[in-house]
Amino acid sequence: MKRSKAERQRLLNDTMEETPFINDEQLATMFSVSIQTIRLDRMELSIPELRERIKSVANNHWDETVRALPMEEVIGEVIDLELDKRAISILNIRSEHVFSRNKIARGHHLFAQANSLAVAVINDELALTAKSELKFTRQVKEGERVVAKATVEGKTDKGLRIVQVNSFVGQEIVLTGNFHMYQSNEE
Amino acid sequence: MKRSKAERQRLLNDTMEETPFINDEQLATMFSVSIQTIRLDRMELSIPELRERIKSVANNHWDETVRALPMEEVIGEVIDLELDKRAISILNIRSEHVFSRNKIARGHHLFAQANSLAVAVINDELALTAKSELKFTRQVKEGERVVAKATVEGKTDKGLRIVQVNSFVGQEIVLTGNFHMYQSNEE
Repeated sequence: MKRSKAERQRLLNDTMEETPFINDEQLATMFSVSIQTIRLDRMELSIPELRERIKSVANNHWDETVRALPMEEVIGEVIDLELDKRAISILNIRSEHVFSRNKIARGHHLFAQANSLAVAVINDELALTAKSELKFTRQVKEGERVVAKATVEGKTDKGLRIVQVNSFVGQEIVLTGNFHMYQSNEE
Repeated sequence: MKRSKAERQRLLNDTMEETPFINDEQLATMFSVSIQTIRLDRMELSIPELRERIKSVANNHWDETVRALPMEEVIGEVIDLELDKRAISILNIRSEHVFSRNKIARGHHLFAQANSLAVAVINDELALTAKSELKFTRQVKEGERVVAKATVEGKTDKGLRIVQVNSFVGQEIVLTGNFHMYQSNEE
């Protein structure tokens, strides 16, 4: 079913609000149009390209610093962070992240992105993983970009901080689960 | 309580049978004697040094080849493997595996060792992780050696293979849990 241009641009706007880190290729597939059409739509709607949108999110919303580890020890690029609340990072899946044989991302790299984001979001000098429960719901291939979103959800009976993490490629969830984090002291 | 030499050597023999990959430092701590005393005990009991014991286990019991991935993609050194049954690997925790700040091993390296062992033990060309449930029960420090033991435990309702993994430093468990593995076909 072919959509009118107005209809497509309205949906495009909605999609960008829900998933600001979707790229032009994914949008083109979603709307069954060419990438060039998506680019023209974005220009007409004054939606900047992905790289600019990521920068903008980082500049607008991110005024905190990770505490539990040096920033360079986070796996993936942190683009949003509010300590003890939420964090977002991006990991581009390259050749070093995949099985040589089938180019599918290895589980421990997706784990590393999610786990280090769970560490980063904790507002404490010390944050250690006590438990993890994860589902890997879709294969991730070389060349895809994984957006991980961590949300601090409260505490367990034992006082461990629960961090929920969902990782996406485009709008598809690829990893979902939670970490129980030990931290050294209460804020 | 100081043990007699005969008593200590009897316990040492038992300990070596249960945990053949324990090292002299750990034994010295366990028996509250010097490392030199442990070495002399081993000589008298004709127990070879750790390196030789590891080689011996590898040579005696390991006559299979991993199928789901090239051996060099396994994180850690596989020292025992029986496809679809069990596998053991060793990972020496070095500076690149730890948080710079506190020298505690990062969760994703322990995950990587356990997860890649779970992949390696599957007797199939394709093995992918669908789910993991893990507890990190003790911090692992730089310089420690982690022995991961994977056991294939049957199948879930959905036909996923369950692999139980326990990782140890000496006799202490540091990681325990399981992976649900998708494989491409039945043998």
